[in-house]
Amino acid sequence: MSILNMPLIIQDTAAIEGDMGMMWMLISGILVFFMQAGFFLVESGMTDSKNAVNIAMKNFLDIAVGSLGFWFIGYSLMYGADMGGGFFHWGGFTFSQGAADLFFQTVFAATAATIVSGAIAGRTKYTTYAIFSIILTAFIYPIAGGWEWNGGWLNNTDGIMPAEFIDFAGSSIVHSVGGWAALVAAWMVGPRIGKYLDGKAVELHGHNQMYATLGVFILWLGWFGFNGGSQLAWGGDDATAASQVVLVTNLAAAAGALGALLLTWIKDGKPNLSMTLNGALAGLVSITAGCGNMSEGGAVLAGLVGGIIVVFSIEFIERKLKIDDAVGAISVHGVAGAWGTLVIGLWGIDGDAGIGIFNGGGAAQLGAQAIGVLAYAAWAIGLSFLFLGIMKKTIGLRVTEKEEIDGLDWSEHGSIAYHGKRQREIEE
Amino acid sequence: MSILNMPLIIQDTAAIEGDMGMMWMLISGILVFFMQAGFFLVESGMTDSKNAVNIAMKNFLDIAVGSLGFWFIGYSLMYGADMGGGFFHWGGFTFSQGAADLFFQTVFAATAATIVSGAIAGRTKYTTYAIFSIILTAFIYPIAGGWEWNGGWLNNTDGIMPAEFIDFAGSSIVHSVGGWAALVAAWMVGPRIGKYLDGKAVELHGHNQMYATLGVFILWLGWFGFNGGSQLAWGGDDATAASQVVLVTNLAAAAGALGALLLTWIKDGKPNLSMTLNGALAGLVSITAGCGNMSEGGAVLAGLVGGIIVVFSIEFIERKLKIDDAVGAISVHGVAGAWGTLVIGLWGIDGDAGIGIFNGGGAAQLGAQAIGVLAYAAWAIGLSFLFLGIMKKTIGLRVTEKEEIDGLDWSEHGSIAYHGKRQREIEE
Amino acid sequence: MSILNMPLIIQDTAAIEGDMGMMWMLISGILVFFMQAGFFLVESGMTDSKNAVNIAMKNFLDIAVGSLGFWFIGYSLMYGADMGGGFFHWGGFTFSQGAADLFFQTVFAATAATIVSGAIAGRTKYTTYAIFSIILTAFIYPIAGGWEWNGGWLNNTDGIMPAEFIDFAGSSIVHSVGGWAALVAAWMVGPRIGKYLDGKAVELHGHNQMYATLGVFILWLGWFGFNGGSQLAWGGDDATAASQVVLVTNLAAAAGALGALLLTWIKDGKPNLSMTLNGALAGLVSITAGCGNMSEGGAVLAGLVGGIIVVFSIEFIERKLKIDDAVGAISVHGVAGAWGTLVIGLWGIDGDAGIGIFNGGGAAQLGAQAIGVLAYAAWAIGLSFLFLGIMKKTIGLRVTEKEEIDGLDWSEHGSIAYHGKRQREIEE
Repeated sequence: MSILNMPLIIQDTAAIEGDMGMMWMLISGILVFFMQAGFFLVESGMTDSKNAVNIAMKNFLDIAVGSLGFWFIGYSLMYGADMGGGFFHWGGFTFSQGAADLFFQTVFAATAATIVSGAIAGRTKYTTYAIFSIILTAFIYPIAGGWEWNGGWLNNTDGIMPAEFIDFAGSSIVHSVGGWAALVAAWMVGPRIGKYLDGKAVELHGHNQMYATLGVFILWLGWFGFNGGSQLAWGGDDATAASQVVLVTNLAAAAGALGALLLTWIKDGKPNLSMTLNGALAGLVSITAGCGNMSEGGAVLAGLVGGIIVVFSIEFIERKLKIDDAVGAISVHGVAGAWGTLVIGLWGIDGDAGIGIFNGGGAAQLGAQAIGVLAYAAWAIGLSFLFLGIMKKTIGLRVTEKEEIDGLDWSEHGSIAYHGKRQREIEE
Repeated sequence: MSILNMPLIIQDTAAIEGDMGMMWMLISGILVFFMQAGFFLVESGMTDSKNAVNIAMKNFLDIAVGSLGFWFIGYSLMYGADMGGGFFHWGGFTFSQGAADLFFQTVFAATAATIVSGAIAGRTKYTTYAIFSIILTAFIYPIAGGWEWNGGWLNNTDGIMPAEFIDFAGSSIVHSVGGWAALVAAWMVGPRIGKYLDGKAVELHGHNQMYATLGVFILWLGWFGFNGGSQLAWGGDDATAASQVVLVTNLAAAAGALGALLLTWIKDGKPNLSMTLNGALAGLVSITAGCGNMSEGGAVLAGLVGGIIVVFSIEFIERKLKIDDAVGAISVHGVAGAWGTLVIGLWGIDGDAGIGIFNGGGAAQLGAQAIGVLAYAAWAIGLSFLFLGIMKKTIGLRVTEKEEIDGLDWSEHGSIAYHGKRQREIEE
Repeated sequence: MSILNMPLIIQDTAAIEGDMGMMWMLISGILVFFMQAGFFLVESGMTDSKNAVNIAMKNFLDIAVGSLGFWFIGYSLMYGADMGGGFFHWGGFTFSQGAADLFFQTVFAATAATIVSGAIAGRTKYTTYAIFSIILTAFIYPIAGGWEWNGGWLNNTDGIMPAEFIDFAGSSIVHSVGGWAALVAAWMVGPRIGKYLDGKAVELHGHNQMYATLGVFILWLGWFGFNGGSQLAWGGDDATAASQVVLVTNLAAAAGALGALLLTWIKDGKPNLSMTLNGALAGLVSITAGCGNMSEGGAVLAGLVGGIIVVFSIEFIERKLKIDDAVGAISVHGVAGAWGTLVIGLWGIDGDAGIGIFNGGGAAQLGAQAIGVLAYAAWAIGLSFLFLGIMKKTIGLRVTEKEEIDGLDWSEHGSIAYHGKRQREIEE
């Protein structure tokens, strides 16, 4: 035994930090997986009971096809070698940099697809959704993800970027990409029958606000893994940083919920549950990009503004744009995602230094954030428009009027969600 | 490279234990957060469907306001410097001793508030609840918490205490405080319309026992974090101790469920679900104080007795005291919380030594436990009485008779929980 | 300070790996615990609302009695000292090898019992189920578990085994044992009234597919702990291996869901939710034995075939065998469990070496797997037949016809699951 053993021991210590990081990513990934259940409950609860089975089937498709597609091709397109200018990446089929990372990234990909599902609920063909879900999970999302998280063109100042773009856990990469795809899809598919009468928006009630509430609690829960796990490591500074990420994530969600709750209370006279739920989600999306670059107070403010923005955005999209987003996904993920990305340029921090214009950081970071927001919007909107356009011309996007009125559960799946003893007697 | 490197390596090992502790607290805190969903399901499932949205809104308020209030002021009142006699503490606004600890303590605070929500369901003004939730989370709970968990007057024998008070994870500090506040609130708000006819208690059915069941499973799940995370560390003895905490927590919950199940089977001829659910929760509350000071057999017995006590307590409060506790929260959290605190003085252990009177520990510990139980009861009852009394004289505690009959969902939030196709047709 | 300190440091490093392993097992056990909620939701959702309370009560019994019985006697029968030929083990009452391991093994035991619950829903006496649940958790399962996981006769080649039997997380030990017990129970209890008319199977609808869907998401979630935690350690190779286990578990589940989804789409013209749910579960069961001995592609294929097998198996058992399995538990756990065990002999790997006949491993492993499958089937079927037979002759297995028609909720528990305002009016 001699002093020569010492490097080995030092290596062991580093190895243990690696092992802890692996555990943290795995547990975080497990929490993110559970978000699928949250999305399922929010989307089915906020829409009609005659389409609930269809939403369940879309969620299972997202996680099933998403897991397989991202494993086979998506991860490679995201984390493979640079194929040119940090724009495209490739590492071969079933490329992987370790099981914990692949698992964590897989459940992220499935999230992006799910966002679209809610917006176009109640009138979209299952086949069409299935194909688009594959395209989104295996191509649109991973290619765009590589721009930032694989050191691509947004992640360095070699090219046009005035500063490195910051999107810690995916306000833009995951949520905005999903949200803008949802925008295109909801617009191209058109509103549900009865949504607009004489040009005025009609409220089509969800069938079960309890599901929606439970779903938001599950999403909030899963988000601790979504943001916290994006530290991608544990041990030393990483442990402290990931803990801080979880803390500010919770604060922003709380502020988002409170913002929407108070706004509807002031605006409409009564605090509204559905908006409070979307406010909490908007608060979470608002801190997803900046959860590593925000003071606690800054996170509260970012979430609060996110919770307020989402209320106005939902009303604007529904009433002015006359786009029928059945659950508010465009506002929660797209609009709040853009806000969460930009806010880093307003009052973001980097350690002790301010990088936002309001705390002495200059305009470079805000510029970088704006470029990122626009790039992801252009990519998601452009490709969604292309692929959904092709499908519209070929297999079609929408079920028939009769199928829609009967409900997608029956027309697409030959099944209904509920069989109550009394309900059955009434129906027969 | 020399022998001088060695202290660094030893330090690294300690740092790794710190990092592991941080991970354990964070994961535990995430589990405790999820208890909000469990409370929401239990409370809404055990009450009428016309008040379900209101309960969801109260739970969102608890976690939103609780998170912000505890971050801004509560944590400081609980873990700041001693301001006099171990009774009051203060560390300045947004005081913190690390993100993982602040997050873990925050979700505890939100739990205390939620306990009140269920007891007074169905007739309390939302504004009143909102204000009381803030008071409880930001003042009543943290000040009382500091007495024990910040080394305050209950935590040492410098003053009147015959032994150090033991409340590992909060049978008294969290659950009894919430339970006694619920007692005062339920009494002051008065029973729901129709609860007592000719002085006899009428069973007002919950609308969905499936929610209540799922809720209890979620609470049981979250309790592993609630108790296990209260070890506040991981590594070496702490890892073994926290594992033992999780084990005995599960045993006590199992025994509590079984106790109530068998008791109702014997007493009423049929094993009752609602009481079994409350029995499981009572078992959990019964081991919350003593989960670090109880043998496995002792934990089983503590939980079993807790599950039996809760059945009689619910009936006593409903029928003899004629206080309408809509979900049994006073019994589950207040009464079982007191039991769980006292039982340490009966058959508690400290390592290999008995500290309860039945295993040779003398009466000092039982005395200390009794003082703690009384102190927390007096504090929670006194301040709840004061603040709710002020609100009763000013803004009022209770909605109007018409609002109550219509349901709080409609009168307070302009919304209803369910929109079934058939139900809608029947209603229109 | 001298070089003599160095062994101490090395020991610390090992201790830290032990501590990490304890954390991983504890968190995994917590996830497995949550599977009880998943089973509850799947079983109640897939059956009639008039039996939902009964299913909740069975699940609470499983976890309560399972936790206590396994702590008191089961763990000892499973992990005690060899009492003869690796067939029986015993270590004394309340025997334990550490809290984290005991907790993890306890929640496994509760799972085995729960599998039976779903198959015999809607017509079985609660008393009978209670007794059988104790027998299964405290005797049948742990004795059989010791054959493999305690180095028993299946786990070495000292006796008849051509190779060491492989069942990493319990495709056979947990799932098949539960599934075969369910087969015997469903057959002996007989079909629900109305299940077969003129010898033809009638579809008895579940009452809430949303619950079933949420339940499957929760089971999928819990399975990451079920399989991943079965590594029983963390750190170094264990961390990598456990991560790989989680990854392939997700891939197999995804493939199983997709297999059933596509099969029903092709076969029946519409993708079916209920079968997709069972396909996901079958995919999970199919990888449970081999999650440490399967390439990623092999896991996908195992899960895919599992998801296809389960559809045909459910139809075969319902229509040909005319055994009424209310939720498909026999197929999901018994048949897919056998498949998941055997597939290791087909394309399993051990590190870089193939051990299945299709990748050059010879027939020894397949032979070993087949012996294990048969041994567990014989044990579970034989003992279930014995104990249920005794109960049939004595206390009886089945409720009366009137009780069954009224529903077990009312007849066995004096309660119903739902009290809707409108439903109440209709009923009165």
